[in-house]
Amino acid sequence: MENIKTAMETHLDNLTKPRGSLGKLETYGIKMAEIQQRVPPKIEKKRIYVFAGDHGIAACGVSLYPQEVTRQMALNILGGGAGINALAGGTGWEITLVDSGIMGGEFPPDRELKPVCSFVRARIGWGSRNSFEEPAMTEAETGKALDQGRALAQDAANRELDLTAVGDLGIGNTSAAAAMLIAAGFPADDMVDRGTGIDDAMLENKKRIVAEAVKRRNPPKDGTAILRNLGSFDLAMMAGFILGLEDRGIGCVLDGFPVTAAAYMAYLINPKVTNWLFAGHLSRVAGHRPVLNKMGLEPIVDLDMRLGEGTGAVIGGHIIELGVKAAREMASFKDAHVTDTGKDEEKY
Amino acid sequence: MENIKTAMETHLDNLTKPRGSLGKLETYGIKMAEIQQRVPPKIEKKRIYVFAGDHGIAACGVSLYPQEVTRQMALNILGGGAGINALAGGTGWEITLVDSGIMGGEFPPDRELKPVCSFVRARIGWGSRNSFEEPAMTEAETGKALDQGRALAQDAANRELDLTAVGDLGIGNTSAAAAMLIAAGFPADDMVDRGTGIDDAMLENKKRIVAEAVKRRNPPKDGTAILRNLGSFDLAMMAGFILGLEDRGIGCVLDGFPVTAAAYMAYLINPKVTNWLFAGHLSRVAGHRPVLNKMGLEPIVDLDMRLGEGTGAVIGGHIIELGVKAAREMASFKDAHVTDTGKDEEKY
Repeated sequence: MENIKTAMETHLDNLTKPRGSLGKLETYGIKMAEIQQRVPPKIEKKRIYVFAGDHGIAACGVSLYPQEVTRQMALNILGGGAGINALAGGTGWEITLVDSGIMGGEFPPDRELKPVCSFVRARIGWGSRNSFEEPAMTEAETGKALDQGRALAQDAANRELDLTAVGDLGIGNTSAAAAMLIAAGFPADDMVDRGTGIDDAMLENKKRIVAEAVKRRNPPKDGTAILRNLGSFDLAMMAGFILGLEDRGIGCVLDGFPVTAAAYMAYLINPKVTNWLFAGHLSRVAGHRPVLNKMGLEPIVDLDMRLGEGTGAVIGGHIIELGVKAAREMASFKDAHVTDTGKDEEKY
Repeated sequence: MENIKTAMETHLDNLTKPRGSLGKLETYGIKMAEIQQRVPPKIEKKRIYVFAGDHGIAACGVSLYPQEVTRQMALNILGGGAGINALAGGTGWEITLVDSGIMGGEFPPDRELKPVCSFVRARIGWGSRNSFEEPAMTEAETGKALDQGRALAQDAANRELDLTAVGDLGIGNTSAAAAMLIAAGFPADDMVDRGTGIDDAMLENKKRIVAEAVKRRNPPKDGTAILRNLGSFDLAMMAGFILGLEDRGIGCVLDGFPVTAAAYMAYLINPKVTNWLFAGHLSRVAGHRPVLNKMGLEPIVDLDMRLGEGTGAVIGGHIIELGVKAAREMASFKDAHVTDTGKDEEKY
């Protein structure tokens, strides 16, 4: 990796700008060079995978929205009317919606869907179990969800993607995410937040439900065990996807709190995942920052967003692309006949 | 303005997302609605004006780069090889390069230029005077530069732009900007920074030169007088451009420190300018934040950039566009058949 890093730094230092003056854009370009083992790196094809599924814990009244909104919003994404459609469209991302386990009935056949995004039917079951009452998944379901995620990483490779992003959709997802992170050792008070916008009374209930679920399941501090006990089909599938990107030369941009919780489970399984992960944005959900910090990931933008669906990931990921674009398209001092002082600001 | 704000908030609250969950994207959409007096607003055409000019104060050795780099970099932009070309290209901005007063000879005729950006020949003179020795501009030159800036605001209206951005190019520009801001009352120590990347000895010299120039010129705390004494052709032209956008229904995104200094002079002349201004990014230059704070502008991104040319403005401006795009393209709860709780998170 070191040779690639040095080669990319030299490449950047020859471009017509004061040394280091593109700041974090240069950092993102260097990380992409390391991921792709290529100087300069390239981002020609990028796709966001939005993992949607229902969470049994939603039955405990932890969300402002009823569970059927998961399916309604999945249909909204397939119809092109959701936030992620507008923002992915404005930043050049293709979308794949993954049904990891949405409740409420079959989706229309592919031939009836609009061509606004691709759709993967990967349902492990009709929603995960309620972790307040029993483990969220069986061992077999957990393995199947992780495998399906790895299969989607293979899909990303088959599509010759340079950059991927992970988004999520599912009523109850911030509760499941919080429960997993508390089980992994993060302080309970920092992890439970308002999600879609619940009031104080609902927040107290959510805190109680999540704490009790963690206490009852009490899984070992092991990524797979935590996913099985307190996670869900979509959270496990995201973790499998992130793990499956190893050694593929593909970057991966995380969205907000639930996606980052899934990434943290992947990180517990294989700490190397941070080599190909980027934090797309900082969510308004309070627990997001400490988990990113623990993985050494710095969010690219901070726009007070908490919509999910990958809306923050596509914005941050587009900025990574801009860094790569600048590295590829800018003229060198020599080619542009611009006087170079040769001074390196890092050597003050 | 209040009716438009309320109407835009209602529009946003009917879209398929938890109330307020697009965070600052919603704030930018609301400001654009107020600027355009239109719900939802639109951003179909956007253009960055990069004002380039030489600063007499560069003769005092305040920059790492020799003065001829201004002209070399202007040619680089006209040739498509500069940072702003890559980043504007990646975010959908058209570019106009404005020669406000670049030294070193005539530019090639239009027919010999590549069609990568438009070029405005608005040279007030061969670089501004050295404010360490004499006022940077005559009264006539200052008026001419301000008028030329206003004429470019008319150009923006003629082009039916929805959003503009202001970038700058010119060796010595951070020194002139710092001198202006110190004269306007900002603390000297906060305003003088390393610019393109000077070392400690050069920084001490820059501080001394800037402080002495301010002391010698000692202008009244009046935007026009400060521009004339300590500014430059390009800084005055930017201020004129910003002032000239009044009542045109066009937003304007600021780049880094020198552009913000010019905007602050416009603000001293007409404090209403903040109604149509956005801070595209937070520069790594230390003095940037306090000046933005004084105008009540919050930077959209913070990417440690300090390149200039408008490179931060186009990234931040693209995020404003994403906010407008989401507001225009997302489905409503009703149209998408998504269950709406009607709960407003602001009413906890």
